Amino acid sequence: MVMALKKKPVTGMKDMLPKEMEIRDYVIQMIKDTYKTFGFTSIETPCVEHIENLCSKQGGDNEKLIFKILKRGEKLKIAEAKEEIDLVDGGLRYDLTVPLARYYANHANELPSPFKALQIGNVWRADRPQRGRFRQFMQCDIDILGEPGNLAEIELILATTTMLGKMDFHNFTVCINDRNILKAMAAFSGFKEEDFDEVFIILDKMDKIGKEGVGEELVEMGYTKENVDTYLGLFDEISPDVDGIRFCKEKLAGFLDEKTADSMETIISSVESAKEADFKVKFDPTLVRGQSYYTGTIFEVTMDEFGGSVAGGGRYDKMIGKFTGQDTPACGFSIGFERIVMLLLENGYEIPSKRQKKAYLLEKNMHKEGILKVLEMAKADRAAGKQVLVVNMKKNKKFQKDQLIAEGYEDITDCYKDSVMDL
Amino acid sequence: MVMALKKKPVTGMKDMLPKEMEIRDYVIQMIKDTYKTFGFTSIETPCVEHIENLCSKQGGDNEKLIFKILKRGEKLKIAEAKEEIDLVDGGLRYDLTVPLARYYANHANELPSPFKALQIGNVWRADRPQRGRFRQFMQCDIDILGEPGNLAEIELILATTTMLGKMDFHNFTVCINDRNILKAMAAFSGFKEEDFDEVFIILDKMDKIGKEGVGEELVEMGYTKENVDTYLGLFDEISPDVDGIRFCKEKLAGFLDEKTADSMETIISSVESAKEADFKVKFDPTLVRGQSYYTGTIFEVTMDEFGGSVAGGGRYDKMIGKFTGQDTPACGFSIGFERIVMLLLENGYEIPSKRQKKAYLLEKNMHKEGILKVLEMAKADRAAGKQVLVVNMKKNKKFQKDQLIAEGYEDITDCYKDSVMDL
Repeated sequence: MVMALKKKPVTGMKDMLPKEMEIRDYVIQMIKDTYKTFGFTSIETPCVEHIENLCSKQGGDNEKLIFKILKRGEKLKIAEAKEEIDLVDGGLRYDLTVPLARYYANHANELPSPFKALQIGNVWRADRPQRGRFRQFMQCDIDILGEPGNLAEIELILATTTMLGKMDFHNFTVCINDRNILKAMAAFSGFKEEDFDEVFIILDKMDKIGKEGVGEELVEMGYTKENVDTYLGLFDEISPDVDGIRFCKEKLAGFLDEKTADSMETIISSVESAKEADFKVKFDPTLVRGQSYYTGTIFEVTMDEFGGSVAGGGRYDKMIGKFTGQDTPACGFSIGFERIVMLLLENGYEIPSKRQKKAYLLEKNMHKEGILKVLEMAKADRAAGKQVLVVNMKKNKKFQKDQLIAEGYEDITDCYKDSVMDL
Repeated sequence: MVMALKKKPVTGMKDMLPKEMEIRDYVIQMIKDTYKTFGFTSIETPCVEHIENLCSKQGGDNEKLIFKILKRGEKLKIAEAKEEIDLVDGGLRYDLTVPLARYYANHANELPSPFKALQIGNVWRADRPQRGRFRQFMQCDIDILGEPGNLAEIELILATTTMLGKMDFHNFTVCINDRNILKAMAAFSGFKEEDFDEVFIILDKMDKIGKEGVGEELVEMGYTKENVDTYLGLFDEISPDVDGIRFCKEKLAGFLDEKTADSMETIISSVESAKEADFKVKFDPTLVRGQSYYTGTIFEVTMDEFGGSVAGGGRYDKMIGKFTGQDTPACGFSIGFERIVMLLLENGYEIPSKRQKKAYLLEKNMHKEGILKVLEMAKADRAAGKQVLVVNMKKNKKFQKDQLIAEGYEDITDCYKDSVMDL
């Protein structure tokens, strides 16, 4: 009765081989350990979410990519079904933010305030499969709910950079901006508020098309040369540091709340002086971050070797309220877990303080006393923290040993029937 | 634009609150750490599996409980759909065994032999919701593929009991039996091979209805008084230890392969003498374990305080072959992760070597120098391994402190603007 299974995983999803899993387990542990020292607590939400919650327009384009789950049993009426929603009960979550909002709405009374949450879990998106992009992937979100002040930003950035530093990442930069500085610069330059989003979408292309490209596109869209020149001139004058922020505070007076500038300055100088890892903090007035839900500070961690961001986030004081009916200040970081794992794998990262590996090879049909003897030795090794393999000797012992050495078992003991008791 | 979400999780699934998550994280880490010292490697498979694989009759009744995933885009033709399968692309896995078999079929060439796999992950079953039983729950499977000898059983039992011992479980029992002893006892008593399954289903009720109940049911089913008496007599004669196995070897000669008895004896005596934790090993000739795929040894860990098994498994040498077309010896343990977490929570288990918790309360609108000072102190505490919370002082400081103490923050420092620099 051979019934061959489909051997490959479903389209766009991935089996994790031992080598990658070792790195994944390590990164997860490092994230949990680090954030816990900063007072974050783990939470978990179900992978399946109400379809109404997933389709509440908070998810943007991701809502088009939902894996939907069929109604079951009597509820499923195929003959009567007109459209998808008649068949569907729930869906796989496409991010951890919608579930966090629901979780907080459901449990706020049982949670401390501020609530510092760490959520690591799989999410699913039916994206077109492509290299390095999967339909199931791990997300890692850390959020502080209920803290209106910049202590949230400071702690989030310190915790995240400490974690990256522990994994031997050093040449990275934390870029910070504030949606209110973005807006003040646009207003100062004469753009109208209803045009801000369009302007920012073009500004966001700065690293790809350069300042001139941005200028050309803005003019093409019909904005006046004068406004565009004023706007681009600002970027020339702003230095990427605390001085740049002070300049903004002065120059944009009347457009920018002084508190915003002061708070940014505190964040940057606090992070600079209290940081654990070795990295740069940069005020980046061109940083936009797409999501429209951000209300204040926005930040991103970029890495030269990666050519992209490995983490990003910001303040979204209005979103939880949309879900719960009650405004709750919120600030969060989303860590690019899969990117970090990919970088570590590509760099051939060696996990520090890896266990010593030891193997015992038992001659075929080893007598009971011999097995006991080996188990005793293995027990002592394990108690000493070693990773110990007890396996039967194969006919091709040379090949077996080469394979074990390739797996990192450098210390291999042959155990023969007539000599095992003398080991 | 208030669009209230459904606040509760989907039916039958559960939000994990911080207190439970702390225990869950701890148990996962303990499982990973322990099995790694025994040479097991973590693997992971996608939560979504081909619907053909899930419905291959290996899953028994679980196949009725699959959460099915809708086809997407152009593939979904609602008007033409006649039955469920026309609408479905995949499903959420209901166990980790089908995915393991697929994984092994797909990657055997890249994996060591024997392959010692540790898989921890969520599975989904659309069971009728009831207390303590959820539609998404964590499973934890450890399997040794490619090892025909009893070294597999010994290592599985040692690793699993070591792990339980580390979590302070002591009064537990490992019950061992072998499908071949079950069969030999039935054959010796005069039952026909085609009746074995029926006989074992009744035998399996021993702990509920007692020996007399089993006898009555067997007679009711039409088996002869003589066969039934012989059968039940055997259970009286067999002691729950190595002597019982020796007795079986002698008494059932001609029905039982001597190797089976010898192997069982080696397993029990090896585990007895090499064990790390404090527990009993018992030969239990009444142990049946429902699944028909077991081919040899079967075992279960029972706990008095729980009144049920917290782990169970056995040898299933024929199953992987059904999937891959090539016979592969296999032996595995499934650990009742949710049961273990429940027991620890109910017992108010205190995680050992918990981090010391410290909190700094900052007076409102703390000056920049004060923030820096506190961040420096927090940095030193964190470097020393403490869990440190830096939060703003609330109006009702007494209430805030009481809450922090309830969360385990016993060491709380007030930081006022005019005195913070002297701390």
